[in-house]
Amino acid sequence: MKKHISIGLMGLGTVGTGVFKLLNDGVEEDLVLGEHNQYSIEKVLVAHPEKSREVEVKEKEITDDPDELLDDPGLDVIIELIGGIKPARQYISRALAAEKHVITANKDLLARHGDKLLEKAAENGVKLLFSASVAGGVPVIENLKRITGTDRVDEIAGVINGTTNYILSQMAREEADFDNVLARAQKLGYAESDPSSDITGRDAVYKLTILASLVFGGWVDWDKIPRTGIENISSADHHCAKALGYSFKLFALARRHKKGLELRVQPTMIPRDKLLADVDGVNNAVKIVSPLHDNLTFAGPGAGRFPTANTVVNDLLSLYEEDLEAGLEKLQEKALNDSSSLLDRDEFVSRYYLRWPLKDPEEQKKQLEEFFADHELPLQKTAEFNSQLNSLAAVTDRCRTEKLENLLNELEKKTDYERPAALYRVR
Amino acid sequence: MKKHISIGLMGLGTVGTGVFKLLNDGVEEDLVLGEHNQYSIEKVLVAHPEKSREVEVKEKEITDDPDELLDDPGLDVIIELIGGIKPARQYISRALAAEKHVITANKDLLARHGDKLLEKAAENGVKLLFSASVAGGVPVIENLKRITGTDRVDEIAGVINGTTNYILSQMAREEADFDNVLARAQKLGYAESDPSSDITGRDAVYKLTILASLVFGGWVDWDKIPRTGIENISSADHHCAKALGYSFKLFALARRHKKGLELRVQPTMIPRDKLLADVDGVNNAVKIVSPLHDNLTFAGPGAGRFPTANTVVNDLLSLYEEDLEAGLEKLQEKALNDSSSLLDRDEFVSRYYLRWPLKDPEEQKKQLEEFFADHELPLQKTAEFNSQLNSLAAVTDRCRTEKLENLLNELEKKTDYERPAALYRVR
Repeated sequence: MKKHISIGLMGLGTVGTGVFKLLNDGVEEDLVLGEHNQYSIEKVLVAHPEKSREVEVKEKEITDDPDELLDDPGLDVIIELIGGIKPARQYISRALAAEKHVITANKDLLARHGDKLLEKAAENGVKLLFSASVAGGVPVIENLKRITGTDRVDEIAGVINGTTNYILSQMAREEADFDNVLARAQKLGYAESDPSSDITGRDAVYKLTILASLVFGGWVDWDKIPRTGIENISSADHHCAKALGYSFKLFALARRHKKGLELRVQPTMIPRDKLLADVDGVNNAVKIVSPLHDNLTFAGPGAGRFPTANTVVNDLLSLYEEDLEAGLEKLQEKALNDSSSLLDRDEFVSRYYLRWPLKDPEEQKKQLEEFFADHELPLQKTAEFNSQLNSLAAVTDRCRTEKLENLLNELEKKTDYERPAALYRVR
Repeated sequence: MKKHISIGLMGLGTVGTGVFKLLNDGVEEDLVLGEHNQYSIEKVLVAHPEKSREVEVKEKEITDDPDELLDDPGLDVIIELIGGIKPARQYISRALAAEKHVITANKDLLARHGDKLLEKAAENGVKLLFSASVAGGVPVIENLKRITGTDRVDEIAGVINGTTNYILSQMAREEADFDNVLARAQKLGYAESDPSSDITGRDAVYKLTILASLVFGGWVDWDKIPRTGIENISSADHHCAKALGYSFKLFALARRHKKGLELRVQPTMIPRDKLLADVDGVNNAVKIVSPLHDNLTFAGPGAGRFPTANTVVNDLLSLYEEDLEAGLEKLQEKALNDSSSLLDRDEFVSRYYLRWPLKDPEEQKKQLEEFFADHELPLQKTAEFNSQLNSLAAVTDRCRTEKLENLLNELEKKTDYERPAALYRVR
């Protein structure tokens, strides 16, 4: 039987509540987290124990006294999700000294004092894990650790602040001005009431410090990294960028040169045909360049309750499970069950691209649009191409393959139009 | 001291040679692979031992007799990189029966017989690993295994065939026709002399089978997956797609529905503002959708010697190293060394975006272009925006920050132009 693991959880905000849900209840019935009930949260530290909450914590388990967690020899792991430097630094320090493993998402603290805290962890023979401190649910740190096992990372580049990326994406889309979009981001919870750490690039500098320190073999001084915020990019700049074929991103870069390291966080125009230009809204993306891997990009939600909480839980599992890559074993044990039967091709739902030879542009387009609208499958886009192409192209609304087939047969019977010269799916 | 691991390598083609180089010599002096010299390649199986090769294999180690590897009780691991069904299937089967771990990149074999081979591995208490069988250097399988440890994958979607992606990217860029681009791809080594497996989507179906089987808990029948090749997409279709805002991709999809699984490989038009639309050339990208992670995208080279060989070597390390995520430990041991000093901001090299208030469009543009050209920093793009914006925007060639600063100072002194109203980096 596996050892039972007792956890002290500090903080019950968005991510803390997510971790509590994952470890206590699971999120949906068939999610496999139930398998991990060797882990239990024994104590929860909050500022106001009497406050009503989204999750039910037993009265004897909730406290506002950190000593109840830090002095409890029964706790194996402290998960710190209160954030900020004070008092988190002291809590983590004490937990490590008491030989408890610590898991944290606290980027400010790690960027400023990560070297000393990691030293303390090593001295006491425990681990300090922080995969959730950068890019929330995107497994950047986990993969960087594996990559640096065999390869030398020469560059890390990307979008690692969701708040500014949301603001820049919205400004570009609507040609709206900074203050309006910021106000909306605050209303939606994508920006804090004091947004300065995000807006000025400090948050991204913290995260870049952590990533760079991980791959360049030593702790970088965060305060020496040049940074520029996004607050002065005007809607005129967004307009010009778009017209020239670029998107503005708050771009973080760490690059190894022979002479030293180039580290910076600055608004940067990314060509629209690059992957990073299409990382929109609160998403994050990190590109890694190395001799053996060439280049790798990881993209996904940079924050959010369950993506981030899941990363915290994965750090927890990595402390105790020998083989975190559990999928394969599961596969070897399971047979294909009934729910895994393949759907028939006719049942697939998709948008479709259709192209006909162009006959009579005006009339043809009108007839086709009417025919599809009458049969409850409106055409979302149509375009005529004269000259050499001589084509009429259209994209349908979403429908089952079967319905489209029937419609095309009917179209062929009722009108002069042959079947389309081309027919492909549209994502 | 760690156990010494003896390896039998089958195949010395592109990837096999890469694995040989990684394990024997390392690739560059400062790559850390030397640390792993507990691993040694003792025997190499090739079709023609006498052929001259890029790497030096000792005469007593190279053979064309598979029994020399399969009957050698001293070998702990067989790395199979000969590909195809026969005789690879039999070799792997015998190796597993002889209680040797097997690592392979053989997607055809896994898609067709993976279930039986995995069963055989489990029966004999050894592992069959195949991370390099899908997407070469992109750690899709490694991450899927970790993700399925806590989460339920509901969708896998992406571009998993580099040959067709190269052809489609080139056709779209040049509006060239299929046969011409295919011929060039063959010349460049991006397509095989018999390209049918790639072109018809069979290769992608094999890979989708492996990914789907990994996350849906049972082996999918590859032969039942609907597939359409790319051979009929005309340059007219590429033209229409571009005009409507899409890119053609050979798109592989595996989606869990209540009723069953939707699996398909088909040319699909992807909206240009989606990440997957910008996966160009021989790159691969896989997007994973799950309740806890929301969505994650992994992108990078889908093939190539070192990306793929490194994935094979990572499978090898995972058999014997407890903590593959080695980066953190390294960090804790190392201090910041001299080569990691931060470069000064003036030393950064970049393209720059500049925007001036528009005064006299014709004259101003001419003067600015001349000024920058005269100072060996030609403007790559310029655009005027009248109306409300009243701006002249330009993108410079790459230069050091310092040089640009000096030029802007000189411009201010010598002419009427004030400093730009905006100045940002361009990637």
